[in-house]
Amino acid sequence: MQNFDPLIAELINELSRLPGVGRKSAQRLGFHLLRQPVESVRQLADTLVRAREGVHFCSQCFNLTSTDPCEICSSDKRDRSQICVVESPQDVAAMERIHEYKGLYHVLHGSINPMQGIGPDQIKLMELFRRLQENDEITEVILATNPTVEGEATALYIAKLLKSTGIRCSRIAHGLPMGADLEYADEVTLAKALSGRREL
Amino acid sequence: MQNFDPLIAELINELSRLPGVGRKSAQRLGFHLLRQPVESVRQLADTLVRAREGVHFCSQCFNLTSTDPCEICSSDKRDRSQICVVESPQDVAAMERIHEYKGLYHVLHGSINPMQGIGPDQIKLMELFRRLQENDEITEVILATNPTVEGEATALYIAKLLKSTGIRCSRIAHGLPMGADLEYADEVTLAKALSGRREL
Repeated sequence: MQNFDPLIAELINELSRLPGVGRKSAQRLGFHLLRQPVESVRQLADTLVRAREGVHFCSQCFNLTSTDPCEICSSDKRDRSQICVVESPQDVAAMERIHEYKGLYHVLHGSINPMQGIGPDQIKLMELFRRLQENDEITEVILATNPTVEGEATALYIAKLLKSTGIRCSRIAHGLPMGADLEYADEVTLAKALSGRREL
Repeated sequence: MQNFDPLIAELINELSRLPGVGRKSAQRLGFHLLRQPVESVRQLADTLVRAREGVHFCSQCFNLTSTDPCEICSSDKRDRSQICVVESPQDVAAMERIHEYKGLYHVLHGSINPMQGIGPDQIKLMELFRRLQENDEITEVILATNPTVEGEATALYIAKLLKSTGIRCSRIAHGLPMGADLEYADEVTLAKALSGRREL
């Protein structure tokens, strides 16, 4: 780094702290920005700060939003009897892309992970249960946490606590992804696909 | 994009304009930034603007610098009789990393590329010739443009114009990179290695 001007070194250093940006990419990004018009760098910087300052949790579903409640929670076209529980705001976007689901969401912002010291209190679980208590209209909770050890544990934890409430609790299906090859499927996925088989 | 909050969409959009950052990486970067403390996003934005506003061309060598002349041009430890001509500021950093070269630099900011309409006037070539004219102490010009068609053409162009001046003009060596395998070397590199052979 002693080979760069101190200000350029600071820029590259700051950029290399971004996820997935190594030393080399940070240099490339840095020199790219130094070649841009001052105005467009100012605009980028302004967008970063405005987005960070203007985006917060939706008070109802905890998705990231610049309005409160978020667009989905405040829409009158959504089915208020269903809540789809996901781990992250990106998962909400993924679900929305299929244009099939018309209910509401609840973003946990993580999953139960005892190995990393993340218990039920560290994610938005209490907020989910409070929400279910306060809204009689909710009749189904769809558990769409990731098909990982942590996501499964979180789904099971929620399902257990909802058992006595009479709210229907479902888990998104696990199985072979479309276009996949049976031969190359891992054992756990294949076992899930078999046990989850449906009559035609 | 309709699946994101407008402000988040704007953030992702702005990030995806960076080189090497696709739609997916922009999303990952965007959500990463939204999870960071406001203070660290402000610091990143501030560094971007400060670097872009504070960094300019060195009036002597045209390297990017926040001082003028740059650190290298103003150092009294450098040999003022040698000028190494490179295409970009990144090339200066690469040369400096080997800790072997003690002369000065001249950054062209590009190479002659008729296909893209870049002639001698579009890069800092006139500035180089003016510099050579005004400084009697310069006795050698080392051409370290890239070993590409454009870099070669640029080197030949400079060499031709310097022929009558009495300034020594050299080109960095082309050949097999250290650790390479003869078997896998491309023909052009191997031919260059052969014609550039030196007695032991």
